[in-house]
Amino acid sequence: MVMSSADAHSAGVINCAAYAGGVRAEEVPVDNIVEVLNRGDRFVWLGLYEPEEELLRRVQQQFHLHDLAIEDAYNAHQRPKLEQYEHSLFVVLRTAQHVGNPPKLVFGETHVFIGPNYIVTVRHGSLQSHVGLRARCECTPHLLAKGPGYVLYALMDFVADQYSPIVQRLEEDVQEIEEEILDGNVTGESTARIYRLKRDLLSLRRAVAPLVEVCNRLMRFDVPQIPDDTRVYFRDVYDHVVRLNETIDAQRELLTTLLEAKLSLMSVAQNDHMKRLAAWAAMIAVPTMIAGIYGMNFQHMPELGWSYGYPLSLLSMVAASAGLYVGFKRSGWL
Amino acid sequence: MVMSSADAHSAGVINCAAYAGGVRAEEVPVDNIVEVLNRGDRFVWLGLYEPEEELLRRVQQQFHLHDLAIEDAYNAHQRPKLEQYEHSLFVVLRTAQHVGNPPKLVFGETHVFIGPNYIVTVRHGSLQSHVGLRARCECTPHLLAKGPGYVLYALMDFVADQYSPIVQRLEEDVQEIEEEILDGNVTGESTARIYRLKRDLLSLRRAVAPLVEVCNRLMRFDVPQIPDDTRVYFRDVYDHVVRLNETIDAQRELLTTLLEAKLSLMSVAQNDHMKRLAAWAAMIAVPTMIAGIYGMNFQHMPELGWSYGYPLSLLSMVAASAGLYVGFKRSGWL
Amino acid sequence: MVMSSADAHSAGVINCAAYAGGVRAEEVPVDNIVEVLNRGDRFVWLGLYEPEEELLRRVQQQFHLHDLAIEDAYNAHQRPKLEQYEHSLFVVLRTAQHVGNPPKLVFGETHVFIGPNYIVTVRHGSLQSHVGLRARCECTPHLLAKGPGYVLYALMDFVADQYSPIVQRLEEDVQEIEEEILDGNVTGESTARIYRLKRDLLSLRRAVAPLVEVCNRLMRFDVPQIPDDTRVYFRDVYDHVVRLNETIDAQRELLTTLLEAKLSLMSVAQNDHMKRLAAWAAMIAVPTMIAGIYGMNFQHMPELGWSYGYPLSLLSMVAASAGLYVGFKRSGWL
Amino acid sequence: MVMSSADAHSAGVINCAAYAGGVRAEEVPVDNIVEVLNRGDRFVWLGLYEPEEELLRRVQQQFHLHDLAIEDAYNAHQRPKLEQYEHSLFVVLRTAQHVGNPPKLVFGETHVFIGPNYIVTVRHGSLQSHVGLRARCECTPHLLAKGPGYVLYALMDFVADQYSPIVQRLEEDVQEIEEEILDGNVTGESTARIYRLKRDLLSLRRAVAPLVEVCNRLMRFDVPQIPDDTRVYFRDVYDHVVRLNETIDAQRELLTTLLEAKLSLMSVAQNDHMKRLAAWAAMIAVPTMIAGIYGMNFQHMPELGWSYGYPLSLLSMVAASAGLYVGFKRSGWL
Amino acid sequence: MVMSSADAHSAGVINCAAYAGGVRAEEVPVDNIVEVLNRGDRFVWLGLYEPEEELLRRVQQQFHLHDLAIEDAYNAHQRPKLEQYEHSLFVVLRTAQHVGNPPKLVFGETHVFIGPNYIVTVRHGSLQSHVGLRARCECTPHLLAKGPGYVLYALMDFVADQYSPIVQRLEEDVQEIEEEILDGNVTGESTARIYRLKRDLLSLRRAVAPLVEVCNRLMRFDVPQIPDDTRVYFRDVYDHVVRLNETIDAQRELLTTLLEAKLSLMSVAQNDHMKRLAAWAAMIAVPTMIAGIYGMNFQHMPELGWSYGYPLSLLSMVAASAGLYVGFKRSGWL
Repeated sequence: MVMSSADAHSAGVINCAAYAGGVRAEEVPVDNIVEVLNRGDRFVWLGLYEPEEELLRRVQQQFHLHDLAIEDAYNAHQRPKLEQYEHSLFVVLRTAQHVGNPPKLVFGETHVFIGPNYIVTVRHGSLQSHVGLRARCECTPHLLAKGPGYVLYALMDFVADQYSPIVQRLEEDVQEIEEEILDGNVTGESTARIYRLKRDLLSLRRAVAPLVEVCNRLMRFDVPQIPDDTRVYFRDVYDHVVRLNETIDAQRELLTTLLEAKLSLMSVAQNDHMKRLAAWAAMIAVPTMIAGIYGMNFQHMPELGWSYGYPLSLLSMVAASAGLYVGFKRSGWL
Repeated sequence: MVMSSADAHSAGVINCAAYAGGVRAEEVPVDNIVEVLNRGDRFVWLGLYEPEEELLRRVQQQFHLHDLAIEDAYNAHQRPKLEQYEHSLFVVLRTAQHVGNPPKLVFGETHVFIGPNYIVTVRHGSLQSHVGLRARCECTPHLLAKGPGYVLYALMDFVADQYSPIVQRLEEDVQEIEEEILDGNVTGESTARIYRLKRDLLSLRRAVAPLVEVCNRLMRFDVPQIPDDTRVYFRDVYDHVVRLNETIDAQRELLTTLLEAKLSLMSVAQNDHMKRLAAWAAMIAVPTMIAGIYGMNFQHMPELGWSYGYPLSLLSMVAASAGLYVGFKRSGWL
Repeated sequence: MVMSSADAHSAGVINCAAYAGGVRAEEVPVDNIVEVLNRGDRFVWLGLYEPEEELLRRVQQQFHLHDLAIEDAYNAHQRPKLEQYEHSLFVVLRTAQHVGNPPKLVFGETHVFIGPNYIVTVRHGSLQSHVGLRARCECTPHLLAKGPGYVLYALMDFVADQYSPIVQRLEEDVQEIEEEILDGNVTGESTARIYRLKRDLLSLRRAVAPLVEVCNRLMRFDVPQIPDDTRVYFRDVYDHVVRLNETIDAQRELLTTLLEAKLSLMSVAQNDHMKRLAAWAAMIAVPTMIAGIYGMNFQHMPELGWSYGYPLSLLSMVAASAGLYVGFKRSGWL
Repeated sequence: MVMSSADAHSAGVINCAAYAGGVRAEEVPVDNIVEVLNRGDRFVWLGLYEPEEELLRRVQQQFHLHDLAIEDAYNAHQRPKLEQYEHSLFVVLRTAQHVGNPPKLVFGETHVFIGPNYIVTVRHGSLQSHVGLRARCECTPHLLAKGPGYVLYALMDFVADQYSPIVQRLEEDVQEIEEEILDGNVTGESTARIYRLKRDLLSLRRAVAPLVEVCNRLMRFDVPQIPDDTRVYFRDVYDHVVRLNETIDAQRELLTTLLEAKLSLMSVAQNDHMKRLAAWAAMIAVPTMIAGIYGMNFQHMPELGWSYGYPLSLLSMVAASAGLYVGFKRSGWL
Repeated sequence: MVMSSADAHSAGVINCAAYAGGVRAEEVPVDNIVEVLNRGDRFVWLGLYEPEEELLRRVQQQFHLHDLAIEDAYNAHQRPKLEQYEHSLFVVLRTAQHVGNPPKLVFGETHVFIGPNYIVTVRHGSLQSHVGLRARCECTPHLLAKGPGYVLYALMDFVADQYSPIVQRLEEDVQEIEEEILDGNVTGESTARIYRLKRDLLSLRRAVAPLVEVCNRLMRFDVPQIPDDTRVYFRDVYDHVVRLNETIDAQRELLTTLLEAKLSLMSVAQNDHMKRLAAWAAMIAVPTMIAGIYGMNFQHMPELGWSYGYPLSLLSMVAASAGLYVGFKRSGWL
């Protein structure tokens, strides 16, 4: 029995312990869970990471979980949701991380099964383990004693906390582009950055927005797996998630406005360039025309015989250009 | 009687069988259905494909279906919906497929009548038959034993699964255009593609979005044709459909942003071209002006008599152009 | 009495008949209606077309209709709505038609009063009479026997059916402009057409959208004038109207995208034109510069004395232009 | 007592009369109101115009109105709303007028207190008095006999009627700009007009939209100050207000589309101008180049010695330009 | 005990007093609060400013506040909300101020705990103290006698009043930019200002919008900490907040339209510049071409020998340019 548990560990079991009165009472091999559950004075907290189907089936047997929920937990690619089954609660959360340089947004998933005296977490693709979470919970036995409902709160709080630095970083990115563009530094580069930021915000939104509904149901409605005195904690997560959501939406709207502002600035710049272009063209074209005139081959052109004809013609060219220059300067074209 | 059933088959009946305890019990000729229904220990699953009106009328008589539902099933061109009649449930689904090359989005329809002990499916225009579906259902007799409600679930799951590759393909198309545009490769072609993708997404949305409401009613409200233990399965379809919907909406928003980003990039490009154009124009215009000056016919132009006048004039032209070139390079116009 | 009825007919009464068991029982003069209503075994169906106020007052007396509803029916210019009075139901519908060439969208109105044993329709501005409707209803006595509620259904179905070809035509117009624009054929004309189509769609929407609410109330809530077995028919109209609405909204969104796509295409075209303009300008400017150089009057310009100076200079011009041509071709500016 | 009433009149009382059975029974001095109210067979209708605080306090005492409502009525600058106090109803309406030339949109406010046997109206800034309203009400004693609730209806109907010509005028303005722009007459002027119209529509909306909710509550919910048989009248106002709202929203959407259409038309025009510019530039540049060539000073240029050299060169210039002209015409650049 | 209170004061206690019958009865040291609360005839109003954690814990003990609420009050960075705990109410408000020159929008927070006989306010970052508020409340003992619920009203009213000048100033800014842009004064500067205004409006909205919901719950639902006769006051704040919200939304929409209008005006300007540019270019190019023609070196050019050849050629140049000038003027290009 210990053997098979060891096997299981290598194939996806991260941790499996029973808690009595908020204190870790014993390590539990996966196939012994039923016996522990039957003792009635403790709850089991089982943590899995990308388990094989075979392990999931064994876990399902121990806790009598529903087929559909197990399928979801195995396949992943679910949206965040809360589903209530007869004896258990099934919660799907999405986790997010910035990975690599330049940072890319990568999503993971955590599936949670909660019953009256157990909680099972199944982690997919999330690089950051929940070890810290378990340690933190064990530090506050009086809270952990509230049972699996409190662990769910701690987990959701943990996940929501992971979003904060990501959203903050996107906010800073928006501010950076903002300054760049409003300073008139408008290249194609910043358009691409705006687009990529918006895409990331849209992905984030799809991970965060459904959590509002999940928290709402956990804090309001009659979910028997969540004891009444734990319910108030989910209000805290709810608030956090709503705040994230609002920030994401505000950034999306700012990016849209920024793209429009950029177009407007480009148009101003283009207009300015065109004016300057026209002004300089005129200042070259007029002397060229004068030179053309004195390049004509008429026999009777008195100026051509003057001693100072040449310098005078040059002077007239310079004068014309200078006059144009002053004029354009005054009208703001230069 | 067997004759008429055979006729019927050729005119639209794909399959008509009775199931007892989740196992196929017998093939049933269309006109014998009433007798089978009266035996009470089995349910009938009848599959039709673009049936003639006459056949539909015979089916209507066997199951006592409502006139309006039969008319809908005959005419097709319905939007997805769920209608409850006194003794039966009428569900309309839309199916979608990518057909041809370049792939074109083609929609079909499946109409379903469900009663306490029968399910009738009427397929229109959908190229992919439901044969696989029936086979799959027959592989899990313990589930099929739940009755027509389970068959409805299996069918809706089947339809929702058909949408996944289509939506995924559109997602990939969006990514492809995304890269093309953000790499600065902005032709009229990509605008047309964006527009066509958006049109396809709009059509898809009209087929998928009403399914959310249909699933919602099937999983929540008191629809007597759906037994309680089947209800939980529709949550699964609901989730799938919501996910499709969210993906479609996200892609639509991305395409809108992409079109705006493209306009912004075009504007940047245009500005760059104008600057470069102006720079080169100046580098040609200045030497032309100098040449014009030395082409003047004044009698007293000392430079004209110099031995090195010509090379010096050429040098001044080159120098002017080079100076302009360096200047424009520095200011980023070139 | 017959006299006054004849007068009335000339002033707006189209048809006034009593129906018993779904069969036309007798023609009823307007001022005899009360007597017929009192017989209790039949219902009266009165059709008016733009009636004078005096006629409306007489009708009001016969049926005891509410002042406000009569005022609405006289003034027209109402939005589609359903109003329940103590003893009667008042429904306003808007009808639409394409009139003239190029087709212009023209709206009419039909006001309906329904009581337990009567239905009064008042038509305004609608060019298409309801004669066909009455004939069609009389063809199905078993349905017409359901009473005024069924006539209301038939009328609403008739009105919704009128919208289908109009919406379809607008859809085709959108497709036509779509192809025109995506083929790069972008003139000011198509912008004007897009705008006009959008305006028409907005008008249509204001006529169709309130019908969704009207149908919804007729098919769901406790409207005593609609018998329970008729209620299911309004689901049919509801569906039709929702479909029209969705099509209208989809077309509106497509037109918006089309206008943006057009701007994007214009921008691409402008960029292309600018590049081509620049390329050709360079190919003329460089030979002009060379000619200018050999037009200078320096005494010591050895090339001027060469026998092949002139052809060589021409050759250099052609070579420069040809070089530029090839270069521009390669870089895609030509 | 008569004295003080006279004083009051000069300081804001427009009219104060008691009505019995729908007929004006007596003029009532402000400080005698309580006595009249106690008689129980009549209701008092008091009209104020921008009253001093002192007068409002006296009115408050007579009717036992709530402090907060009185403060609102004194300060004005409220949004349209309906507030129910224990014994009275407080309604705020906004009125609108086009003033001056060019017409400017100016808003006023009317505050109404309604109790079982009184109605007090406080007008702010509205230039159009309610005198006509009182006269009109007095013309229909059978309706006025319904009491203060009917007066409220009449007042709201009066206010809604004031909006109709304003909204209509804005609609006409939109149509005017529409035609101007779609005819290609696109100046900066029309952009400014579009913007100003949109701003006006936004202001109007803020005045009209809350009325929908106000009417809705008056016609549906249990507001004891409104007798049941008056309730149906507010449906009339509701309809009117919803219609205004829909028109305003449609115009806003049209203006947005119009601005986009204009940008599109500008882009078309700019493209056309650029093409024409390029064509004419080519037709001048090519002869200039030819002239430059024959202005070169090579000793061996056979054409220069030909008798018909000069006319032939001119001919070649004309031919080149004509060729270009025809070519540009054909390709649509001219 | 007095000592420790003094310490507390230096570390964040602004004011702590007990009120009996609306009158300030005594100053209360923080650690004596329980005793005062037990007397039952008075309520305690404690004002804190950015308290240390230790002080907050002491306050928590005195009032038996919930851990989560205390954590929120310590950390700040909450969105406006109302949370009901078993015995107390927790309200978070955001305050706003324009600081510096050019004015920058700075947000603060005020957290409020309300119980049957106490109110605790915790201020964060808000520069403007609530001293005036307390003084104002003490001026109306009959209102203050209503208890902590009234103080909450006064505080929310105070906070809403702070928003008014800020929103008004933003409105004026919008009007200023409006005039600047519609007068054709379109620089990059105004685009940046529009963007920054929009960003400020978005921040404001996130502070103001949740207050609508908070007020709504305070004025409607059964919040036991708010006595019934105080409930009506929150309607006043509700109204104010809704008005602020509407103004903010209207300004946001105006700014969006303004940005579009600006783009349209830029496009008009660009078109005008291009036309003018083209016109002047033509007026220089044509004389240059004529000069080029008479600069050709053909031996047989009769005009060259004419006495008046030169002046005539100049005349033809002037005539050509003048002709062009008139033509361009007429067609509106100049």
